[in-house]
Amino acid sequence: MSKILVFGHQNPDTDAIGAAIAFANLQNQLGKDCEAVALGTPNEETQFALDTFGLTAPRVIDSVAKETQEVMLVDHNEFQQSAADIADVTVLAVVDHHRIANFETANPLYYRAEPVGCTSTIVLKLYKENQVEIPKAIAGIMLSAIISDTLLFKSPTCTDEDVTAAKELAVIADVELEVYGLDMLKAGTNLGTKSAAELLDLDAKSFPMGAKNIRIGQVNTVDLKEVFDRQAELEAAMKDSMAANGYDLFLLVATDILDSNSELLVVGEPTAPVEAAFKTTLTNNRAFLPGVVSRKKQIVPQLTEVFEG
Amino acid sequence: MSKILVFGHQNPDTDAIGAAIAFANLQNQLGKDCEAVALGTPNEETQFALDTFGLTAPRVIDSVAKETQEVMLVDHNEFQQSAADIADVTVLAVVDHHRIANFETANPLYYRAEPVGCTSTIVLKLYKENQVEIPKAIAGIMLSAIISDTLLFKSPTCTDEDVTAAKELAVIADVELEVYGLDMLKAGTNLGTKSAAELLDLDAKSFPMGAKNIRIGQVNTVDLKEVFDRQAELEAAMKDSMAANGYDLFLLVATDILDSNSELLVVGEPTAPVEAAFKTTLTNNRAFLPGVVSRKKQIVPQLTEVFEG
Repeated sequence: MSKILVFGHQNPDTDAIGAAIAFANLQNQLGKDCEAVALGTPNEETQFALDTFGLTAPRVIDSVAKETQEVMLVDHNEFQQSAADIADVTVLAVVDHHRIANFETANPLYYRAEPVGCTSTIVLKLYKENQVEIPKAIAGIMLSAIISDTLLFKSPTCTDEDVTAAKELAVIADVELEVYGLDMLKAGTNLGTKSAAELLDLDAKSFPMGAKNIRIGQVNTVDLKEVFDRQAELEAAMKDSMAANGYDLFLLVATDILDSNSELLVVGEPTAPVEAAFKTTLTNNRAFLPGVVSRKKQIVPQLTEVFEG
Repeated sequence: MSKILVFGHQNPDTDAIGAAIAFANLQNQLGKDCEAVALGTPNEETQFALDTFGLTAPRVIDSVAKETQEVMLVDHNEFQQSAADIADVTVLAVVDHHRIANFETANPLYYRAEPVGCTSTIVLKLYKENQVEIPKAIAGIMLSAIISDTLLFKSPTCTDEDVTAAKELAVIADVELEVYGLDMLKAGTNLGTKSAAELLDLDAKSFPMGAKNIRIGQVNTVDLKEVFDRQAELEAAMKDSMAANGYDLFLLVATDILDSNSELLVVGEPTAPVEAAFKTTLTNNRAFLPGVVSRKKQIVPQLTEVFEG
């Protein structure tokens, strides 16, 4: 029988890759035959984490049906964020911390979602519930995922459970949480070496909202000015991507991980609902969003409300 | 603040009502302010169980937004099986054992689904994970739900976890499992006193499949002949319901709980895919389905496959 493939969303971040590695290992310990794979190569932050803990990046795939009939999803459920042919295979399990949308199955499945800051926090619970020991390297990548998703506990998505989980995992992984955390986050802010198209694609997801197809990218930085010095180049690349992929709107959220603010860059139409969603006015296609760091909690629901409400 | 309403699907069965009572009690013990309600009155089987354990039937509602903004769903997720205005409120949590379809949220939520035979089996796990004690009466209604959903462990949906859970709950509820179980199931087969329309509605759910809107009712009996003596009357009522509600197809699954077989009655079009789904030929709109007792596992996936595959 073919292996069950376990993977996170497209444009994988540290949780998409870390939770896949950790959940696949858990399932294998429980007697399944799973392989963690990824719908893209690791970003620099994730690669830093993998290197630190001596892990190999998962094999990259884009479709699944040619090699298996059974998959498990982590850190996502919406089909448009998943493997290209996800509708053609059986989803046996989902572990996630996002809203549920554009997801359906023909059969009952295992679905475990909790409104916490990181999928890996839930995966840690599953290890405990099943009384399976967590190897040091896997504790390290799970810890990295929590640091990444919560921006070292500064995101409003961060819950007490995430903090407790991270502290526990840091002990197993044998690292100094705050020191390692900032080093890892900074490794992901090396934007200067990337093309505008690469920046947009680093951590971008598509969301159908009402009749509109909205693309929302996010980049972490320690210097917002460095990002917006390239505004013209970014806008051109956003327009290219919209034309190629049929997006109506493209939002780029540049997040200052030190000060915990974001600046928004918007291309496409309509922009009035975007302004309404964030109670702001776009100037030169931009808006500063003080205190906003979470796409999931501070961007997507607000946009969904105006586009579908 | 208004109470959080907790409820199962329309045309509630014993699990829809039992899991709502049990999950609402658990949430209240954990500090929430919940009320178990129901999208319909208990059937005779459920009423037998409620009476046995001294529980009151939950208040019946059909819409929710006029009294609360927050709900928790048990034993279902598909919006067309839920409160009429479910899309207007926030679903905080779902505990279920069905496929996921026609369900979406704007925000992350708690979602716990497992491919076991009964929602109450999962709710028992949640009591344990949260170390909350189960009152005797609530153990009784949870046990009744497991007996009902698994037809006293005879359904192919029944897992080892359901059997273990039922045995454990029977001890807390202080009943003889097999004796109580058969008494309860028989209490639900008292079909003679019901009109054809009532029979159809006892345990019926709607499923959009491809372009078709399919209604599937199920009745338990100890005598299939008693059901089909009323075939003409049933078909007339099925046609009335189709006209009133816009169903394309109406399937009635009459299940012999002693022999674990079912007989199908089909009204509407197209019937060829139904025959293909069950590898049978309809004669006089009927087909005998040996060994079939589970709508979820032996009816819905097979129909979905032919209508959407």
